[in-house]
Amino acid sequence: MLFVALVHFPTMNKEGRVVTTSVTNFDIHDIARASRTYGVARYFIVTPIELQQQFTRRIITHWVEGSGAEYNPSRKEALTGVEVVGDLAAAGESIERDFGTPTTWIATSAKHYPNTITCQELRRRLHETDENFCLIFGTGYGLHTQILDEVDLILEPINGPTPFNHLSVRSAVSIYLDRLLAVRTEE
Amino acid sequence: MLFVALVHFPTMNKEGRVVTTSVTNFDIHDIARASRTYGVARYFIVTPIELQQQFTRRIITHWVEGSGAEYNPSRKEALTGVEVVGDLAAAGESIERDFGTPTTWIATSAKHYPNTITCQELRRRLHETDENFCLIFGTGYGLHTQILDEVDLILEPINGPTPFNHLSVRSAVSIYLDRLLAVRTEE
Repeated sequence: MLFVALVHFPTMNKEGRVVTTSVTNFDIHDIARASRTYGVARYFIVTPIELQQQFTRRIITHWVEGSGAEYNPSRKEALTGVEVVGDLAAAGESIERDFGTPTTWIATSAKHYPNTITCQELRRRLHETDENFCLIFGTGYGLHTQILDEVDLILEPINGPTPFNHLSVRSAVSIYLDRLLAVRTEE
Repeated sequence: MLFVALVHFPTMNKEGRVVTTSVTNFDIHDIARASRTYGVARYFIVTPIELQQQFTRRIITHWVEGSGAEYNPSRKEALTGVEVVGDLAAAGESIERDFGTPTTWIATSAKHYPNTITCQELRRRLHETDENFCLIFGTGYGLHTQILDEVDLILEPINGPTPFNHLSVRSAVSIYLDRLLAVRTEE
């Protein structure tokens, strides 16, 4: 079973310093919609800032229970799978509580690491085992090395045919979910 | 060679009526960055509204020539490949003028049509021929049928393992570009 976590702390800024980024409205919606499309079990929005958590929960509640639910039922359906948490430990507790088994944590990065796993291999494990995997995405200029050091695995970078590799996090999540979970007729 | 066009008219609203949508800042950046990553030759933002064209060009100029160019060179690089045009005919003229050959127009849709082409087949033609293809994406609730009727081909829908199919246009562009142009080691 696959989970997605979008981390707003600890992330890096342009100068490589640790920062807390703000939750972006498009990150809430685009990633919730992609997660629902591909059957992600839960999408965690991770921020330690109480006010950001409130802001994010208010947006979600508007679309899930408020006047947005009737105006746009597909947004309701997408956002039902979103949970706001303070850190990855809380996401882990939520997974263990509701889905029973421990979680393998997989960070995403534009670089290669010794513990890199390919999309092909992770796709195989998702289809052939009942393991829980949580993909961790960073906002700002990416996840802080503290997270990269602590996770179990790193998912291979997304490579196009050019040296340019500055996809938005919304694009990166969408592409990884398609590589891992799309229905493929040729398989 | 692949081109991308993001159409703001004629598109449909929630009730299925023809509307002109507004250009969204995230659509400019996310799709420009994905296009640059995957080597798309040009990304056309299509709107007949003069004021929207000016607004969009002003954003692009800020990042390509203004203070944004020094602040974030990767945005400059991504946005260099963007052109604002009034309609698809103008996009076609731009392609013919700068890339020489006629264009095969391919709309994207969440439904199947008799002239649907698979991603696999389009990928093959992109790699084995020197044809020009322009993928057309709709904003709002999708492309008006007028465009679907006039194009040469329709690209197969993106299917996840669930019945939910409400990806954002930013997600859809990213996923199609990955399916069509990603470097694949297994090939």
